[in-house]
Order: sequence, then structure tokens, then C-alpha cells
Amino acid sequence: MRGAVLYGPRDVRFEERETPKIIKPADAIIKISATCVCGSDLWPYRGIQPIAQPTPMGHEYCGIVEEVGGAVTSIKRGQFVVGSFFASDNTCPNCQIGYQSSCQHAEFVGTAQAPLLRVPLANGTLVATPEVPPGDMIPSLLSLSDVMGTGWFAADAANVKPGKIVLIVGDGAVGLLGVLSAKQMGAERIIAMSRHESRQKLAREFGATDIVTERGDEGVERIKELTNGIGADSALECVGTQESMMQAIRSTRRGGYVGYVGVPHGVEFKGEELFYAHVHLHGGPAPVRRFLPQLIDLVWKSKINPGRVFDLTLSLDQVAEAYRAMDERRAIKTLLRP
Amino acid sequence: MRGAVLYGPRDVRFEERETPKIIKPADAIIKISATCVCGSDLWPYRGIQPIAQPTPMGHEYCGIVEEVGGAVTSIKRGQFVVGSFFASDNTCPNCQIGYQSSCQHAEFVGTAQAPLLRVPLANGTLVATPEVPPGDMIPSLLSLSDVMGTGWFAADAANVKPGKIVLIVGDGAVGLLGVLSAKQMGAERIIAMSRHESRQKLAREFGATDIVTERGDEGVERIKELTNGIGADSALECVGTQESMMQAIRSTRRGGYVGYVGVPHGVEFKGEELFYAHVHLHGGPAPVRRFLPQLIDLVWKSKINPGRVFDLTLSLDQVAEAYRAMDERRAIKTLLRP
Repeated sequence: MRGAVLYGPRDVRFEERETPKIIKPADAIIKISATCVCGSDLWPYRGIQPIAQPTPMGHEYCGIVEEVGGAVTSIKRGQFVVGSFFASDNTCPNCQIGYQSSCQHAEFVGTAQAPLLRVPLANGTLVATPEVPPGDMIPSLLSLSDVMGTGWFAADAANVKPGKIVLIVGDGAVGLLGVLSAKQMGAERIIAMSRHESRQKLAREFGATDIVTERGDEGVERIKELTNGIGADSALECVGTQESMMQAIRSTRRGGYVGYVGVPHGVEFKGEELFYAHVHLHGGPAPVRRFLPQLIDLVWKSKINPGRVFDLTLSLDQVAEAYRAMDERRAIKTLLRP
Repeated sequence: MRGAVLYGPRDVRFEERETPKIIKPADAIIKISATCVCGSDLWPYRGIQPIAQPTPMGHEYCGIVEEVGGAVTSIKRGQFVVGSFFASDNTCPNCQIGYQSSCQHAEFVGTAQAPLLRVPLANGTLVATPEVPPGDMIPSLLSLSDVMGTGWFAADAANVKPGKIVLIVGDGAVGLLGVLSAKQMGAERIIAMSRHESRQKLAREFGATDIVTERGDEGVERIKELTNGIGADSALECVGTQESMMQAIRSTRRGGYVGYVGVPHGVEFKGEELFYAHVHLHGGPAPVRRFLPQLIDLVWKSKINPGRVFDLTLSLDQVAEAYRAMDERRAIKTLLRP
């Protein structure tokens, strides 16, 4: 089969890769219905996170079960399934407490930009939909695999509650779905920081009540103006840079909550500033698996439509263009169909 | 009057200072019943936190109201009161949400090692006891002014709940009262890290179920052994160094809570380590005022006896020896009587 392989900065190729097979009894093979490019794929794509060798790419997936190993009992051939980018056994103490992305046996699922995918720990990792979904629901189901689950975790980690004022730092797909999550959780006011018209528009459609274009100290000032001088109750950090992290912390009120899901690159917190900021901080790789049943249900009942973040759809063999479009911010998120 | 003045590293003097007077209508003057030396006083005493000029010292206090300004209505002359080391109006948005140490009008109360003390914002800051207390209750009431309130906040910030496994990093007075707080909040297992016999003993009396003497990676290993391999549910960081902070974070289970109250000195968090640690982090200067009514009630009813951390009592004119004894770890905490 052919799939995506990253060779170096801005060099992603669609080329022959080994066809995945069942290796362990807990494995499943999925025929991919749709996959996509993640904001976090852009870190190695841009060379900021160097790679040691040609690397197969992709960690977001949904599709039809093609084959299962002998130990797989929770799903069967022909079912439509969604899984997280971290395979997890869903039984270890970390999983049991809801941190499946820190499963003691976690394995990163990193070869999804391809027609077929091996998923380890299939019993714990994959969740089947009630039936094979209609085609127009696939983008939303795909988003649950990472980007929507991550936006949801950001809102959960930031303690978003009905009636609260929520700030979203980052207007990528995760940030936009953070807006949708905050809305779904009952936030009264949702402030999105964005300078891009198309993203501002989608943020508003997802539930943002205010758009802030200022950044840095001016951004903090503007958030304070909008929040009676004290800052947001909750802030979702959806980028992973020093600037975005400090933007979130400094814009949050004393005793407020910062949920951070942007994979940190070069981020350092000064102990003293954090101490006097008096905020709650929680984040990390989203335990997407915790939220899958609930989020599948919300999509299935058409209560949320997170698939709208995909504003470009290409065929899998156009994967190089998919990366370029996101790198150049021409696309919010690119969906790929095998 | 005479009071404590710090001149430089290990040079604290008991000398003539200006007698405090009402300056603003919201002020009160307190006749100090007892004051003490704080672990955080040792930072400037040791020269780690340099001072620019001779500096009056002391921020823990309780005593009898001597005089009040024209705007003070909540307390009156002759009452016994306890206050926080941060004066707060208790009406601003930060106070209303329980973060009085981040009051928008906060003033540090820093001249308490003296017979008389001016307390600003007296209405918001001072809480009167039901009556003038018996003498043997004064050490416990004094402790509420900072050290007990801070240990309590550490436990509160670390989400200590009935049945949980709690780790205490730091065997100073705050750490020991963190043990007492965790016990009072219903923790099932309380692990104290300490290498000092007298402190281990007091920790056990306050409710510690396990003592760990190892530190660093060995300390983390030992905590994991005691917690089924996954780490503590809650960790209280009561020191403020890089080592103690990382000890707390690395010893906490995924999804667990770290409450930190040690004033950070040179602490830096690497974003990536914190991200993958998957812990909740909250702390800062303890909003002691939030807890004062509840803690005064617990002391008044003899349900807690936090004053036991004072293992040395001196008269105020021996303040230099009070600092020396704590600096050399001969005393856990020194109480001073005018």
C-alpha cells in the first residue's frame, strides 16, 4: 500500500509502505475511511521537532474493522470504529482514573495517513459507532480521534462550567473545537483570540461571543476590559508556545483555571510568576479515550458538528498539498480520503 | 518601642523602631500577644533574597486590639484578633472568590516582630475570637496567621479528600501542618518526607502514616512502591526549591494534584515535563483569610492543636537567637513573646 512518509522539513511523500498486519493478538487492522493532518504534525514538518529517519505519519483515524487478533473481543470485522492517537489498554490504574493517554502500556498510533492501519490494544482503544455512519458524519467522527477530543479535554481541564467566562488562546482546529466544547459545556461568554477572518467566522458559529485580535500585554489588557478587570474564569491554551501559554495564564483571574493541550515547544514556567498568578494549571496529551463514548453520542445525535473544522478535503495521494495548505494557513485542517 | 530589624545576612537586631500609629481610617493597632519567625523569613536572613536596606521583620501575629481608625466597624478595642500576613479588603472580586492574598488592595503586613503592630484594611483582614482566649491556646491561634493557614491551603490546593493518599514534601512547620490538614480533611494515608527524628515524630503525631527518608529519584521510587506503582493522589509542596517541586510532581499519579505553597526560589518548570506528568498544579501565597473563621473554630473547640509546631519559645528581645535556632534547624519554629 502507499502512505505518507516525512523525510525532512517540508518534504512529505506519498510512497510505498509496508501493509500492516496483525502482529499481536490484541491488534486490529482498520480500513481507513478518513484521516487528516494535525497541527502537531506541523512541528516535525517544519523541522522544529527534528526526525531521525524517514517517518510514516498520521495519528487521526476512523474506519471499518478489517481484521482482529485472537484476543480482540470488544469489536468485530465490519464495524465502524474511532480510536485515540494513543492506544491504551483501558484497564491499568492510569486508564481507570481517566488518563488513558498515560496508559502504562500506551503506544502512539502514528501511521494513520494510509489506507490501512494497525491499532494495538484494540479492546481498550477502539470504540464502535451504533451502526456504520452516513458519509456526511465521517468528518465529525474522525475529529473525535484527536482534535475534538483534545479541545474537549482543554475545556474539561480548564474547569469550564455553565455561566463562566472562557478564553480560547489559539485559532487552529483545536482552539476552534475548544470554543465548541465550551459552548456545549454551558459557558456564558466565550472569547476567542484570532486574527484570521475565516477562523473568526467559524469561532462565532461554534459559539464565540467575543473576538480579540490583540496579543501579548495588549491582549491581556483587552481580556481584562472584557471581564470587569479581573480576567477569564477559564483559559484554554491550544498552541504550545511560550507566548500562548503566558497569554493564557496572564489573562486568567486569580483562582481561575488554565487547561493546556498545545504540545509545549520550548515552554518554561517561572515558578515565581506562576505562584503569584494564583491559577490552576492542568493539561497534557488529551485522554481522548475517556471522552469517546460521550462525544460519539453527541455526534450521532447531531448535537455537535465538529467536522466543520475540515475546510479542505483531498485524496490521500495529495498528502503533500494537505501539509502545505495547513503550513501556509490556507486551510484550518485538511481531511484526507484514501 | 523596640522590634526586630534585619540588616543583612544573619544579622537581625532588636532595636528601637517607630511606634505604629493609625495612619488611615481603615487601620487598627494590635498589641501583640505572640509573634514568630517564618521559614520564609530565612530567605532574606540567609541572604538568598537580598534586602536593600535595614528591614523590620515579622508577618505572623495575633493579639488584642489597642486602637481602631474611624472606618473600622468589624472589631473593637479589647478584642483578641488573628489576621493574615496579607491585609485584604475582603470585598474586591479576588477576595470574594477566596483569593484574599491577591486582594486588589493587598498590603503585606511585615512589621509584626514587635510589641505593637499596625494592620491596614482591618475590617477585611482581622477576625476576632469568640472571647479572649486562654494563654495555652495562643500558639495555635498564632499559627493560623500564616503557617497553619498555608499548610491548609496546600492541602486544599492539592484536592485532599477522604480516603486519598497524600504526600507531604517538606518537614518544616508548613509541611508538618500540611500533615495535620490532610488528616483533618480525611486522608487515608499520609506520607511525610523527612530525615529529622523530631520532625518525623511530630509528623506521626499529626497523622502521618508513613515516613520516607529518600530523596530525588530514590524518593520517587519509594513513593511509587508505597502507592501501587502509580504515585500519590495529592502532593503538598512546602519548600519552594526546584528539587522539592520536582519531587512533588514526579511522585504524583497521573491526574493527581500538586498543591504548592513554598515561595519559589529559582524554580522553573519545563513545559514538556509538566505536560506529560498529567498532574493538576495549584498554589501561591495562601489566602489565609479565607480559612480563618473555620480554623479559629477548630482551634477554639480543641479539634486541632497546630501550635505544637512551636518547639522553642523566647522573649522578643531574643529574636536574633530565634532566627539562629531555625536557621540551624535546632528549632522547627520559634514563638516570640513581647
